[in-house]
Amino acid sequence: MNEIQVSVTGNVTTDVRHVVVNDSTPITSFRLASTTRRRDPDGRWYDADTTWFTVTCFRALALNAARSLRKGQPVAVQGRLRVREYEVEGVRRWSLEIEAGSIGHDLQYGTGDFQRVPKVER
Amino acid sequence: MNEIQVSVTGNVTTDVRHVVVNDSTPITSFRLASTTRRRDPDGRWYDADTTWFTVTCFRALALNAARSLRKGQPVAVQGRLRVREYEVEGVRRWSLEIEAGSIGHDLQYGTGDFQRVPKVER
Amino acid sequence: MNEIQVSVTGNVTTDVRHVVVNDSTPITSFRLASTTRRRDPDGRWYDADTTWFTVTCFRALALNAARSLRKGQPVAVQGRLRVREYEVEGVRRWSLEIEAGSIGHDLQYGTGDFQRVPKVER
Amino acid sequence: MNEIQVSVTGNVTTDVRHVVVNDSTPITSFRLASTTRRRDPDGRWYDADTTWFTVTCFRALALNAARSLRKGQPVAVQGRLRVREYEVEGVRRWSLEIEAGSIGHDLQYGTGDFQRVPKVER
Repeated sequence: MNEIQVSVTGNVTTDVRHVVVNDSTPITSFRLASTTRRRDPDGRWYDADTTWFTVTCFRALALNAARSLRKGQPVAVQGRLRVREYEVEGVRRWSLEIEAGSIGHDLQYGTGDFQRVPKVER
Repeated sequence: MNEIQVSVTGNVTTDVRHVVVNDSTPITSFRLASTTRRRDPDGRWYDADTTWFTVTCFRALALNAARSLRKGQPVAVQGRLRVREYEVEGVRRWSLEIEAGSIGHDLQYGTGDFQRVPKVER
Repeated sequence: MNEIQVSVTGNVTTDVRHVVVNDSTPITSFRLASTTRRRDPDGRWYDADTTWFTVTCFRALALNAARSLRKGQPVAVQGRLRVREYEVEGVRRWSLEIEAGSIGHDLQYGTGDFQRVPKVER
Repeated sequence: MNEIQVSVTGNVTTDVRHVVVNDSTPITSFRLASTTRRRDPDGRWYDADTTWFTVTCFRALALNAARSLRKGQPVAVQGRLRVREYEVEGVRRWSLEIEAGSIGHDLQYGTGDFQRVPKVER
């Protein structure tokens, strides 16, 4: 309850990392950069803020994302937003995380050839 | 201002319709069915309501969607919601419409092979 | 799962209806009109589409909404979207429904004086 | 284009700060804490993550928010998400910011008495 839902489009900026924990749960994660486009007073578009996220997903979505997504590709992500804070060698760091409920290639920028995966594999 | 933004996942339930208006603007549309899943008191998932939308998109997204999407495929759509009312042979009808800002295959259900389209074509 | 979340601002266009079902669950509902504002080519704002919703809420939110909301007031609503279809005297009708998770007066258009209600009453 | 829209409910955790810049634009800001509630395996709700935001608003909304909101009150906020990074005495800091499009008291937790403000004042 009271989850913070976000919908973000942007580019995959890292290799996609895939692990299996406890011999069973597939987890996939990657960094996503989302750049806001605005118009200047003369009506020309320019790049405004860029926001970075760590996108994480699980199970069937993790398996298919790992097989499908490559560094540099544009994606659309829906999910729950969370801030993660942690320490590296005494320095406090943080990242914006999205636990993805859905991920797809963003067809604004290219074409996608989809192959359904049998349910048993999910 | 005051647009009604929605994020929906569901299945393409019709052939994808593609037209070019005024010799220049590509428009693609299809019907989308989104089914809510709920848990019963014993924790089992079941299909609850299904909501139908007409999804419409323009320009580069329209070209790539027409080349990529097929009837039966699962997609994730973000866009602006609108109700369209019209008459067919004296009977008032309506449909829920989404003007899509982004569309992608939903990687929950399969894999996607993405090909970037050169910018000149958009 | 797969709920269609929406965030809408608009005006309460009916009296607020409040009932208690089964001697226990308070339910409040009202009609909401949300009008999209767009700019014409000269930069002037004009009213574009208006979309109507039936907003329904339950329990504590229903009690407080019934005490707080009046016809004509501007509100911001977050919740789950659903289409309801029904028949009145043989004619099929439909309405767009939002089951509200949160409702508040929209402070864009005026001021609000808030009184917390003790938890026991929720 | 490509803005990151969020809808958040939570509590105002600071006094509300109100300034007027350039003798003309009212700006109001406050900190907001949003706590996710989850169910444990026995079905009991507990507080999970808390996420903090700096909420900022302008013009009419800023004037009315400054007159209406008090520390400790529950609110519902819709707006655009942005990460702001800055330095204080050589230490890099950051905050999650929401530029609010709408703000209202969250009627889940109490009642609101609304007074419309004449348009000239906005």
